[in-house]
Amino acid sequence: MKRIGVLTSGGDAPGMNAALRAVVRTGLSLDMEVYGITHGLAGLLDGEIEKMTWSSVGDILHRGGTILYSARSKRFLEEKWQDHAVTILKTFGIEGLVIIGGNGSFAGGLALAKRGIPVVGVPGTIDNDLGYTDFTIGFDTAVNTVLDLISKIRDTSTSHDRATVIEVMGRHCGDIALHAGLGGGADFILIPEIESDIRKLCMEVLKGKHAGKRHSLIIKAEGVELSTDEMVRTLEDVTGIETRAVVPGYIQRGGSPTGRDRMLASLMGGKAVRLLYDDEGSRAVGISGGKIISVDLEEALRIERPFNKEIFDLAVMLS
Amino acid sequence: MKRIGVLTSGGDAPGMNAALRAVVRTGLSLDMEVYGITHGLAGLLDGEIEKMTWSSVGDILHRGGTILYSARSKRFLEEKWQDHAVTILKTFGIEGLVIIGGNGSFAGGLALAKRGIPVVGVPGTIDNDLGYTDFTIGFDTAVNTVLDLISKIRDTSTSHDRATVIEVMGRHCGDIALHAGLGGGADFILIPEIESDIRKLCMEVLKGKHAGKRHSLIIKAEGVELSTDEMVRTLEDVTGIETRAVVPGYIQRGGSPTGRDRMLASLMGGKAVRLLYDDEGSRAVGISGGKIISVDLEEALRIERPFNKEIFDLAVMLS
Amino acid sequence: MKRIGVLTSGGDAPGMNAALRAVVRTGLSLDMEVYGITHGLAGLLDGEIEKMTWSSVGDILHRGGTILYSARSKRFLEEKWQDHAVTILKTFGIEGLVIIGGNGSFAGGLALAKRGIPVVGVPGTIDNDLGYTDFTIGFDTAVNTVLDLISKIRDTSTSHDRATVIEVMGRHCGDIALHAGLGGGADFILIPEIESDIRKLCMEVLKGKHAGKRHSLIIKAEGVELSTDEMVRTLEDVTGIETRAVVPGYIQRGGSPTGRDRMLASLMGGKAVRLLYDDEGSRAVGISGGKIISVDLEEALRIERPFNKEIFDLAVMLS
Amino acid sequence: MKRIGVLTSGGDAPGMNAALRAVVRTGLSLDMEVYGITHGLAGLLDGEIEKMTWSSVGDILHRGGTILYSARSKRFLEEKWQDHAVTILKTFGIEGLVIIGGNGSFAGGLALAKRGIPVVGVPGTIDNDLGYTDFTIGFDTAVNTVLDLISKIRDTSTSHDRATVIEVMGRHCGDIALHAGLGGGADFILIPEIESDIRKLCMEVLKGKHAGKRHSLIIKAEGVELSTDEMVRTLEDVTGIETRAVVPGYIQRGGSPTGRDRMLASLMGGKAVRLLYDDEGSRAVGISGGKIISVDLEEALRIERPFNKEIFDLAVMLS
Repeated sequence: MKRIGVLTSGGDAPGMNAALRAVVRTGLSLDMEVYGITHGLAGLLDGEIEKMTWSSVGDILHRGGTILYSARSKRFLEEKWQDHAVTILKTFGIEGLVIIGGNGSFAGGLALAKRGIPVVGVPGTIDNDLGYTDFTIGFDTAVNTVLDLISKIRDTSTSHDRATVIEVMGRHCGDIALHAGLGGGADFILIPEIESDIRKLCMEVLKGKHAGKRHSLIIKAEGVELSTDEMVRTLEDVTGIETRAVVPGYIQRGGSPTGRDRMLASLMGGKAVRLLYDDEGSRAVGISGGKIISVDLEEALRIERPFNKEIFDLAVMLS
Repeated sequence: MKRIGVLTSGGDAPGMNAALRAVVRTGLSLDMEVYGITHGLAGLLDGEIEKMTWSSVGDILHRGGTILYSARSKRFLEEKWQDHAVTILKTFGIEGLVIIGGNGSFAGGLALAKRGIPVVGVPGTIDNDLGYTDFTIGFDTAVNTVLDLISKIRDTSTSHDRATVIEVMGRHCGDIALHAGLGGGADFILIPEIESDIRKLCMEVLKGKHAGKRHSLIIKAEGVELSTDEMVRTLEDVTGIETRAVVPGYIQRGGSPTGRDRMLASLMGGKAVRLLYDDEGSRAVGISGGKIISVDLEEALRIERPFNKEIFDLAVMLS
Repeated sequence: MKRIGVLTSGGDAPGMNAALRAVVRTGLSLDMEVYGITHGLAGLLDGEIEKMTWSSVGDILHRGGTILYSARSKRFLEEKWQDHAVTILKTFGIEGLVIIGGNGSFAGGLALAKRGIPVVGVPGTIDNDLGYTDFTIGFDTAVNTVLDLISKIRDTSTSHDRATVIEVMGRHCGDIALHAGLGGGADFILIPEIESDIRKLCMEVLKGKHAGKRHSLIIKAEGVELSTDEMVRTLEDVTGIETRAVVPGYIQRGGSPTGRDRMLASLMGGKAVRLLYDDEGSRAVGISGGKIISVDLEEALRIERPFNKEIFDLAVMLS
Repeated sequence: MKRIGVLTSGGDAPGMNAALRAVVRTGLSLDMEVYGITHGLAGLLDGEIEKMTWSSVGDILHRGGTILYSARSKRFLEEKWQDHAVTILKTFGIEGLVIIGGNGSFAGGLALAKRGIPVVGVPGTIDNDLGYTDFTIGFDTAVNTVLDLISKIRDTSTSHDRATVIEVMGRHCGDIALHAGLGGGADFILIPEIESDIRKLCMEVLKGKHAGKRHSLIIKAEGVELSTDEMVRTLEDVTGIETRAVVPGYIQRGGSPTGRDRMLASLMGGKAVRLLYDDEGSRAVGISGGKIISVDLEEALRIERPFNKEIFDLAVMLS
């Protein structure tokens, strides 16, 4: 393979730029040409494609976001546009494609792979919601961002004897809540993987109150069924403790990637290009047991994320 | 004066602990006894009073929140409870009081001052909404916290060609929005001091769009009449640009104080005690033209905050 | 086992407090009594031992350093003092011991284990120099601290077209230099595991200069034979590029632990206590392939750290 | 005036980019042409001059360093080269010049002003060593950077019962040491403005030791006569307390500017251009009593920095 493309797609994640740098420079080191496609799969359909050089990925390793921009594409769900994408790639002579993104982007990639384009997926999403890999690029940064916010919120929460509910990202996967909850010493962690019981929560907060505990920190993934507003109201009504909600939202998506995310992104980006170089397509790169792996792209989309009960129980026990 | 009390009251602010440390250690250096009153004016009514030592304010200079806790007190609005507070202070032999807090706390202090208790107010609030002082303790930290958040949000906002509305604290005073807006390079700054015109805003965003600007950052104080939700909806409807809101909320209240807030708090805390030492009561400490000053407490509450049009215009011009 | 002790020893590392919290709370959850020994093995000899409660490890999860203090003990190298330590432990009725520290501390622990005291080692050191575990507690934080420093140094280094040599910690193990070098986009990484060739380094810097590269970042572990001063002098002499050294030193040891270090510390601390609970002694806890493991303590000290050539080569290739 | 130039010179400082942005955009807003001169006065001599646009200063407000690069120029000390600079400026049709830098850069500017070129100096240096202005751009950021380092160093220093000497920047002016020392709760602050007495220092450390104080933090400006190495040796010899030195060096020069530095830079950059627009030359912009001012450039170089004894005494009293 002599000419490959790379794009970032879906919700952006810190470390996407680091992955991109690794893709471009590994490709160039292997004497390939590397083309950057801006605005993800949508940009591919519009032919937003430009040749990348060694220096076009200089000074981006430590930057959040993605210099290739990202987007979600509705058109790409339709077969005719998927066919069109293949035409575009062929027109540019692009023989293989690296897609840095999450679930939806991988599904788009699979559609291309089924049309004969060698595609390698690199998991870039803060949610850590891909089952085939222990970690996704951006997750470690998001956890540390939330820990920093928790530490600020705790200052004011403690000073005012308040309960605070922090709603973090994670629609189907509670990993950000779980890891930031354990690391931040949250009193309660609510995640989609475990059914939440608001009555039990109120009871525990009350118990703490009677034991002299003056503030509580509850961390909750956005995917938890009970809405944050409702939870705040119920907590305040039942316990009589002033309760506030904080929803950091998009703050979690930004920031300079951590060392670990830069390392992960560099390793995964490099691996993805090597797979294409060896003419392996329809793969997804991951990390498992500390080792960089690759699995079949279709299987990667099928594997459900196992829930780490051990960490959840540890967090509960230590809190 | 041989025995003074100190309390933190109202919304907490980074640097309150630094001010507290200065009050206690300056008092001890002047051979006074210093009593800490926990939970603000509410705690005063309940006799939550304890003697402070040199080491009881050790290792707190850099911590957010307040080790004396804070609270708002409804009882304290009533005359009978204000009388009660005087009784409590006399019972403990406390001859003068330092109140670290904002508007409402100063008003409470004034009630005590009118009952003959020498009271000195130290402005601790992130809002910078006190008219008699150029800066309040906590404001500089809050601005830097918001700048850090803006920088994270910009990463993801740029990557997705989005408009983002960031709603920061400030009910009556737009200073956090103004300073963070200028410092963060916001495209638009909306504050209570200037009437907002959503039509003009939409027009400008559209203009930017046609000129090739792919993302916009709008920073808005919570005191702006138009609700953030409504603004997001209107922007999206009119401009067709995906628009998101971020409301950092209590995150802005926490965090380790900046160097400037520690300095300000140390100078102001020291000044407050010296005023009491010199038997001056009913004063508020401030900073004006780079110098630590004190003004009459009642007047301090009357002086309206002048709006800094020059900075607003500069921010608009540079953005 | 009903009564265990815990101490932190050797150079401190961020996350030691998180490990300590996990040890104490896991122990209490298993109905054990947990005694904290201050100042490491030295403190053990002096009987600096106090009972720990649930709340004595409250609010420490996110703090750098160690609330139990640490120390190195020369006395402990002598057999008679090792015997004395056993006497002390027996006097206090302490049946098992968790030692949080590095190489030297584990060696001390082994001396006690050989005298019949069940000892479990928890790897707390920023150096990542223990062969039996993929990661030590504190390493991830140190890498991120160095990345933050690199980012600051790069600002000024770039502005002045300078070469900068950053000397980071790591006497025998170059992992901090390696991971921070890859993550920070260093132009050159010098580590004890790979022989350094100053002539080649100068040649490469000169090559870069002629290709228009105006600044270079060289990251070097302290264990590299060539001294930093000499390297700076030679670089300046040969290349004519202004060269500066930065030695962050103890800055690398402090700071709030990252999410990953808190997680690692919590898991390892919990595991250590469970081993003692199950009457397993003379073990060292580690992480291998993403799983918490334990190995024989003596073996743990024997296993040499394998050098990760793959990461080194990737760093060289991407720079 | 229709065409102005701008350059950054001397040691770089966080906020130089923010000042540059304000210069360029204010100039363009006033319908002037703005030319950027790279590599300071040295680059001026070599004709490194390029036209700046609105977007050439986009996305730089929050970046450390200077996109125009900086340099020191020995040639510029000679009259013939100063004449040459005037020729260059005239060739480019540049009628006025903004110089962002410190003492030396202002002296260079004065040489040009004396040759008839309207020059305005903007104080960009972390040292805060210019007498005519209360603050220089970069100082606030440097203080906060040092505070962050102190907080990390304190973690490990406390854990090991050590004394630590931190040597910060400041050859003639101890302001970084003074402000970071007060804000960081240093036990001792040594600055060039106050004669240091190592015997007294040892005595005080010993006193603290006997009172149970287990660690000491000494912050010292680089301009203090006694070398840091010697101080460490003496302290260790006399007190028997393990003592370590940390020299953060160039770390203090980098980093994203604080809100205050961005504000100061924006105000000062804007003011500088307005002066040129009004045909006022040979001025230096500053801040005094909270207001942006300008003074005669020659006088600005003559005014000695007054030493703030009040802050020093407060720091000593509170520590």
